[in-house]
Amino acid sequence: MNGFVFQSATEFVFGRETEGKTGELTAKYGGNKALIVYGKGHVIASGLLARVEKSLTGSGIPYIELGGVEPNPTDHKVYEGIRLARTHQIDFMIAVGGGSVIDTAKAIAAGVVYAGDFWDFYAGTIPVVEALPVGVVLTIPASGSEASGNSVITKSDGLHKISLRTGEVLRPRFSIMNPELTLSLSSWQTACGIADMMSHVMERYFTNTLGVEITDRLCEGVLKAIIDAALVVISDTGNYDARANLMWSGTVAHIGICGVGREEDWASHFLEHEVSAVYNVTHGAGLAVIQPAWLTWMTVHQPEKVAQFAARVWDVPEKRDHRLMALEGVQCLKNFFKSINLPTTFSELGIDHPDIDLLVSKLHEDKGDLIGNYVKLDSRAVHEIFELAK
Amino acid sequence: MNGFVFQSATEFVFGRETEGKTGELTAKYGGNKALIVYGKGHVIASGLLARVEKSLTGSGIPYIELGGVEPNPTDHKVYEGIRLARTHQIDFMIAVGGGSVIDTAKAIAAGVVYAGDFWDFYAGTIPVVEALPVGVVLTIPASGSEASGNSVITKSDGLHKISLRTGEVLRPRFSIMNPELTLSLSSWQTACGIADMMSHVMERYFTNTLGVEITDRLCEGVLKAIIDAALVVISDTGNYDARANLMWSGTVAHIGICGVGREEDWASHFLEHEVSAVYNVTHGAGLAVIQPAWLTWMTVHQPEKVAQFAARVWDVPEKRDHRLMALEGVQCLKNFFKSINLPTTFSELGIDHPDIDLLVSKLHEDKGDLIGNYVKLDSRAVHEIFELAK
Repeated sequence: MNGFVFQSATEFVFGRETEGKTGELTAKYGGNKALIVYGKGHVIASGLLARVEKSLTGSGIPYIELGGVEPNPTDHKVYEGIRLARTHQIDFMIAVGGGSVIDTAKAIAAGVVYAGDFWDFYAGTIPVVEALPVGVVLTIPASGSEASGNSVITKSDGLHKISLRTGEVLRPRFSIMNPELTLSLSSWQTACGIADMMSHVMERYFTNTLGVEITDRLCEGVLKAIIDAALVVISDTGNYDARANLMWSGTVAHIGICGVGREEDWASHFLEHEVSAVYNVTHGAGLAVIQPAWLTWMTVHQPEKVAQFAARVWDVPEKRDHRLMALEGVQCLKNFFKSINLPTTFSELGIDHPDIDLLVSKLHEDKGDLIGNYVKLDSRAVHEIFELAK
Repeated sequence: MNGFVFQSATEFVFGRETEGKTGELTAKYGGNKALIVYGKGHVIASGLLARVEKSLTGSGIPYIELGGVEPNPTDHKVYEGIRLARTHQIDFMIAVGGGSVIDTAKAIAAGVVYAGDFWDFYAGTIPVVEALPVGVVLTIPASGSEASGNSVITKSDGLHKISLRTGEVLRPRFSIMNPELTLSLSSWQTACGIADMMSHVMERYFTNTLGVEITDRLCEGVLKAIIDAALVVISDTGNYDARANLMWSGTVAHIGICGVGREEDWASHFLEHEVSAVYNVTHGAGLAVIQPAWLTWMTVHQPEKVAQFAARVWDVPEKRDHRLMALEGVQCLKNFFKSINLPTTFSELGIDHPDIDLLVSKLHEDKGDLIGNYVKLDSRAVHEIFELAK
């Protein structure tokens, strides 16, 4: 087991009607004037935005708003938010939405108090040392951004989708999680969220660091809980408990405990980010295609941990040949994704002729020569994985 | 799934030689003058105390010391610490030890800034609203106190062992966890710690709240990791990775994620606290006796969750009769405790003729008429459980 630091100061307030505590929590964490960030009109139509506004007003906290954040959010909206926040002397960011909205709010939070271009943080030329505090009202369980100091933004000029990883500075002060808000999610959004949160666990599970059984067991437990809840939700979309299990699982998946004590991988995420950036597909759907392809490649090159995944998560019986066990596990994962109507190939994702050369070259441009850790992937390996995803 | 709040702001710094960061972390969390609390001379003999002192000195932080905290710590030491801290105008508490030392440091931290008698907090007449910050250098994985806002102190006058549960106010600011410090623990201390951390999971696992699969899965994963590491450590006491797994498992067991979303039980802890208070046995050893007796009683009165525990943690095959499955699971737990040389009966604990009437009456005096939640235990039920522990 490697040494590590684990900290997660976010106050998670979970349960029915908890959005009514937005004002109280914003005040508790020092907010005097808030910028509410949201995405599409759904939060207006559902009445959620009005309930958040009412809660802020009830706590005497004025606010302004920035709507229209798109999936795979871009730097344009961040620049707009930074200008707005400066003009109105905002001191607290409130994200009402899913990962795209939260990540945009975080980028604004860091950019407002920085004299240079906020993209410097994403380009990796300077670390984030201060930021406005961020609060979250989560509507889509998927990204885990409600629990992390991370943010993913796409630079429109050149379509570079970059993941920024910070520690406590961008971790939300509070995250309000009401599973009722997720009851009306479409089965497509739900399924994409499931693939994303499962991938957050798998990126941490596949490691060469030995002797971290506790973290393995936690990963396996979260994956099993997600699978069980997913199979309920897909036919019973209004099941509160299953929705609640999915929502909290998405947080546990990304809070850090599934990764401590070892090297993580993240290659599938990096590969998928290129697919999303070029073809603007939903991140979770892209992962449902890329992660099984990555795993299939690993059954040949590094099958041991994939075999453990097969046995413990999918109850694949022990076999002398661990490659066969591993392959059976990957097939279980694919079948599971198919059963919740996710694509598992480029063509099912609507990309009949992926420009793999472009994806590979953009990946290495963004992330360097070698990708991931479980096996460090050169451009030839990445090419093979993209081919396996066809 | 019930609504809940989850927050754990403690910075856990885990790995080899991490005690060298005590000074840096104390400064980071605002300490200017520290009171170091410790127990027996082992921390002196091992050189740990000297390394902590050197780290504080290196960061320019003066300190005084209070040694001699005993297992099942009493109010006497707390009063002594409060006087000392006031005299020397201490603003930061550093606990170097296990649960008894940490719990004493927390009690002092709350008592120093309170004009009344600190026992008011434990008597439940007033909540803790402020306290000095506490930092921890953990030497015995067991209590989970390094991750919680809880503290257990025994009032010498009358031998009332009382558990205080607070939220963030007494949660350590940092906890330094170096598994090397646990390599020299005796197999008895190690085994008692294992029983304690397993009980912390089981107290949260046995609940009537349905639909909290994610929390069940995490509990089962932690228990499996503890069992696997325990079976290594018992024959290979110097195994760093197994020690590291035990140490982190003890924290995960008590950080809160094993309990969120449902009613917890804690009857076994309350029963054991009376045994510890009257007979001054080691808490973990007492739990190894009480928890299986409690479970055995449940196989008759509420077997369902015990059967799930048997199947998922101990791989007991599915049976039509869940009582039989449950009993087999309890037997597995007892056999496991025996395999690491823990007692599983009062007589093995060295108490040949327990005064059960006294234990029952003290329990209800401290905790009211009904104990626990999985089944609410009246005095007759408690009597039966103590009898089963004979």
